[in-house]
Amino acid sequence: MNGAQALLQTLVDAGVDTCFTNPGTSEMHFVAALDHTPQMRAVLTLFEGVATGAADGYARMADKPAATLLHLGCGLGNGLANLHNARKARVPVLNIVGDHAVHHMQYDAQLQSDIETVARNVSPGFVRTSTSTAQLAHDALDALQASMGASPSAGQVATLILPADVSWSEGGVPAKRAAPAPAPAADGGHIQTIAQALLGPGRKALLLGGKALREPALLAAAAIAAQTGAKLYAEVFPTRMQRGAGLPHVERIAYLAELASVQLAGLDHLVLVDAKAPVSFFAYPGKKSYLVPEGCAVHALSTPQHDVLASLQRLVQAAGADQAQPVLQQAQRPERPGGKFTADKVCKALGHLLPENAIVVDEAQTSGLMLPRFTAGAPRHDLLTLTGGAIGQGLPCAVGAAMAAPHRQVISLSGDGSAMYTIQALWTMARERLNVINIIFNNRSYAILNLELQRVGAEQSTAAGTDKARAQLDLSTPPLDFVQLGHSMGVPSRRATTTEEFLHALEYALRTPGPHLIEAIVPQSVTGLKLRVLPHLLQSLHSLPQPVARALKKVIAP
Amino acid sequence: MNGAQALLQTLVDAGVDTCFTNPGTSEMHFVAALDHTPQMRAVLTLFEGVATGAADGYARMADKPAATLLHLGCGLGNGLANLHNARKARVPVLNIVGDHAVHHMQYDAQLQSDIETVARNVSPGFVRTSTSTAQLAHDALDALQASMGASPSAGQVATLILPADVSWSEGGVPAKRAAPAPAPAADGGHIQTIAQALLGPGRKALLLGGKALREPALLAAAAIAAQTGAKLYAEVFPTRMQRGAGLPHVERIAYLAELASVQLAGLDHLVLVDAKAPVSFFAYPGKKSYLVPEGCAVHALSTPQHDVLASLQRLVQAAGADQAQPVLQQAQRPERPGGKFTADKVCKALGHLLPENAIVVDEAQTSGLMLPRFTAGAPRHDLLTLTGGAIGQGLPCAVGAAMAAPHRQVISLSGDGSAMYTIQALWTMARERLNVINIIFNNRSYAILNLELQRVGAEQSTAAGTDKARAQLDLSTPPLDFVQLGHSMGVPSRRATTTEEFLHALEYALRTPGPHLIEAIVPQSVTGLKLRVLPHLLQSLHSLPQPVARALKKVIAP
Repeated sequence: MNGAQALLQTLVDAGVDTCFTNPGTSEMHFVAALDHTPQMRAVLTLFEGVATGAADGYARMADKPAATLLHLGCGLGNGLANLHNARKARVPVLNIVGDHAVHHMQYDAQLQSDIETVARNVSPGFVRTSTSTAQLAHDALDALQASMGASPSAGQVATLILPADVSWSEGGVPAKRAAPAPAPAADGGHIQTIAQALLGPGRKALLLGGKALREPALLAAAAIAAQTGAKLYAEVFPTRMQRGAGLPHVERIAYLAELASVQLAGLDHLVLVDAKAPVSFFAYPGKKSYLVPEGCAVHALSTPQHDVLASLQRLVQAAGADQAQPVLQQAQRPERPGGKFTADKVCKALGHLLPENAIVVDEAQTSGLMLPRFTAGAPRHDLLTLTGGAIGQGLPCAVGAAMAAPHRQVISLSGDGSAMYTIQALWTMARERLNVINIIFNNRSYAILNLELQRVGAEQSTAAGTDKARAQLDLSTPPLDFVQLGHSMGVPSRRATTTEEFLHALEYALRTPGPHLIEAIVPQSVTGLKLRVLPHLLQSLHSLPQPVARALKKVIAP
Repeated sequence: MNGAQALLQTLVDAGVDTCFTNPGTSEMHFVAALDHTPQMRAVLTLFEGVATGAADGYARMADKPAATLLHLGCGLGNGLANLHNARKARVPVLNIVGDHAVHHMQYDAQLQSDIETVARNVSPGFVRTSTSTAQLAHDALDALQASMGASPSAGQVATLILPADVSWSEGGVPAKRAAPAPAPAADGGHIQTIAQALLGPGRKALLLGGKALREPALLAAAAIAAQTGAKLYAEVFPTRMQRGAGLPHVERIAYLAELASVQLAGLDHLVLVDAKAPVSFFAYPGKKSYLVPEGCAVHALSTPQHDVLASLQRLVQAAGADQAQPVLQQAQRPERPGGKFTADKVCKALGHLLPENAIVVDEAQTSGLMLPRFTAGAPRHDLLTLTGGAIGQGLPCAVGAAMAAPHRQVISLSGDGSAMYTIQALWTMARERLNVINIIFNNRSYAILNLELQRVGAEQSTAAGTDKARAQLDLSTPPLDFVQLGHSMGVPSRRATTTEEFLHALEYALRTPGPHLIEAIVPQSVTGLKLRVLPHLLQSLHSLPQPVARALKKVIAP
């Protein structure tokens, strides 16, 4: 048995049965070994960013890692942006990166590069070049264990570099290893202190992230909220958030720091539950990055060494909330939208039609703003978001989610700009006949950058100039045709230019298995964007008291 | 003046007037500064790999760097593969990578990552994070100087990381710097030794690479060859090679190590002229990587500290070749092809129709095999190839070449597999109305991997298995439609399924300005590939003596 065969057998024995691939010559023995390992599914992609984003989406839904198969440092480089998103999502991914045979490396051949250096950006916790066919299975198990982390909150990207000769040589031996002990709950005394803070005076909130946005943790957090009066927030870009009718409603921290500050204003105690203290996404001249108000005590419920659900359940006990009734979201859909077609109508149509148990992958930065509001009372669903800010994540993530949950409807939302980074994902959707409906908001611009140009204060400096700056945010020349793009890669595709067309396209896609693409031609709103967006944001913060909302308006839209 | 404005002014004053961009929020002040710096052209791309590949192609043709504008570590990651190709090509590229404001970095926000670590893979010689608005212009000049290297042979990728606050703060001061002294020729004694070897007994060859494949160096090398009987070779993947009627014909070292060994067999002296000693592209079980025959003395004419052309001219003198008549390629085109449509017919049609002074970007791995032969006597042209082996280089490189040489016809050749990595380049071609004819060979497979699967010896192990391994090399399900892909991004596109259709499409594209795409549906040849390819390779080694060719046949195709 050669190294590649032993590696594949070891992986499937350990439960890693899906591999997202874009192989080259140095991976040919891994590829050949697929024929000896029927339990391993190999999903070919046309670009490595699709493979890595799919591995991320898969792990979010399967709660176990997929493998990637990448071609040397350049293949890893192509996959880096979505591995970054996976790293920030704290999900497990097991990269297998082929390399030259060990004796070949000294010659600095064309594809030779410093793979370990690239890998450290996304795999700071585990990068290893395997140097022995006999040890390869153990290296793989070390990488797998590293990817899974010390607790469900500590998933990470682990990178195993596989020289071609380690792969092709005989002497491979599959290996197995017992599962590690489960992570403990946080210390009882620590939990008691937090319970006291929550039961004491002042304004309190729990900020839920990571694994604390799944049903059992949500119910526990909502019981604590009911008992203590604490408010519940979710991190701004959740890895995977379960929501909809019958689950506690949790408001996400806003992307715009100005709005997040309003959400957090006046807090005395903030309890972080598998989440980090909120900071602004970018820095802006003259504005602060750290969003926790001064004087607010911040308590981390647990560390990545602890099991967050067990810790939360211990907090339920400590707060005397075990009999408290969590407030659950009522079933409530928006009515069928009509009238002028806008991005908001797309979100409303989704809220109107979202099927049971859907998986929504949201990478629509400006166009998806109303999605949380319109789907809050829809049938329960999972929401996967852009955890690391590296756009080009939505379509690949949808590939992986669909592979992990083939009987659920996946719906991805992307902007025209973001969709183009990894548009090759459509081909894998067609090849694997995945149940993904891809909604592309085509507003023919990097709309979010028009907003950001204003926010960083750069807009004034362009006022007297040419149109070169604005042209950098404009995608209208030439216009992208996503229907042809979808067809070119085998995905049935339709264009919607009216609300009614969109509704029909979505209804058709929902009743027809396999992948679909709907290009929603939504109005470009450049100069009016700020005014258009902000009232919606204010609405989406619907739980704010009126005085706060009024104060907010003064801050944001003077 | 803010930092971004000072930076842009410094760059254009130093002759860097083209920037390939994919900006985000942290680059908004750079973008705004474009309106204050009319001399800087900003070319928007939809994906960073297009920006970096374009900067590579630009520098190959302009012999000076373009800048890139990339968004943090993830944007750099997306551009890494084509920066790798640029690094191996030894061309200058000046990366400008935006980063968070310095005070924001401590918070590990979503897009925070270790940019310097990523950059070191492609920029080992220069990575710097600018920390002062006042010093920014000097940092930029340091980066620019580093990118240009100590000689024209020592270009490299230099990466300047630009925190948002360094960019947006006031206090920027543009700077200028005198050009460094030109690099000297190699030492006269060293040159004399090489001349003695070339004038002495035995078989001798010059291996030309880098800047030694431009006309003045080619003529010098050909004079030496005429005087000494040395044979001329070019490195397997030249950065930029001038060739065609009226220039010396130089045979490239073959991609397949087995064939390269035959080319180099029996050599006693090999003089490296801006080239490395030949090694195989990949390692293969039981085959050697270093291709210089045992007993052959290897002489490096110069180092990257030296001017290669001056060194070569000194060698002309030392060898007494200043009156020698170099052998020049006769004008000679293949006849108009007809009959069954194959990839070879495409190459023949190109040889038949290639216009004066074209730029040919060749990334067609298997389908372009006959291109060197059929274009050898075509009008003179520049050939740009895949220097680093990271596919997805062809289309972006064509973008950059066309920006650098707007009045020349650029023709790019890609496989279906390689084109899909950076297909977004088509949009920039349409947006900038570039004179690029993109020929995509659609054989619906990663055809080169079918060959490599045989060569690494992995094929046997798949014989008894399923079709999972072969499926990893197959792009037929679903078939890619490059005509729709081209149209979706605004590029006029046609499909050719016969030789006559291809000729018509090429003739139409040659007489119609702006970008074009021609999808050549060529037969997929999986099982027959080895037998089909090898005779062609033998033919392309047309200068081999018959006994060698016969011996070769026995080695390669027993």
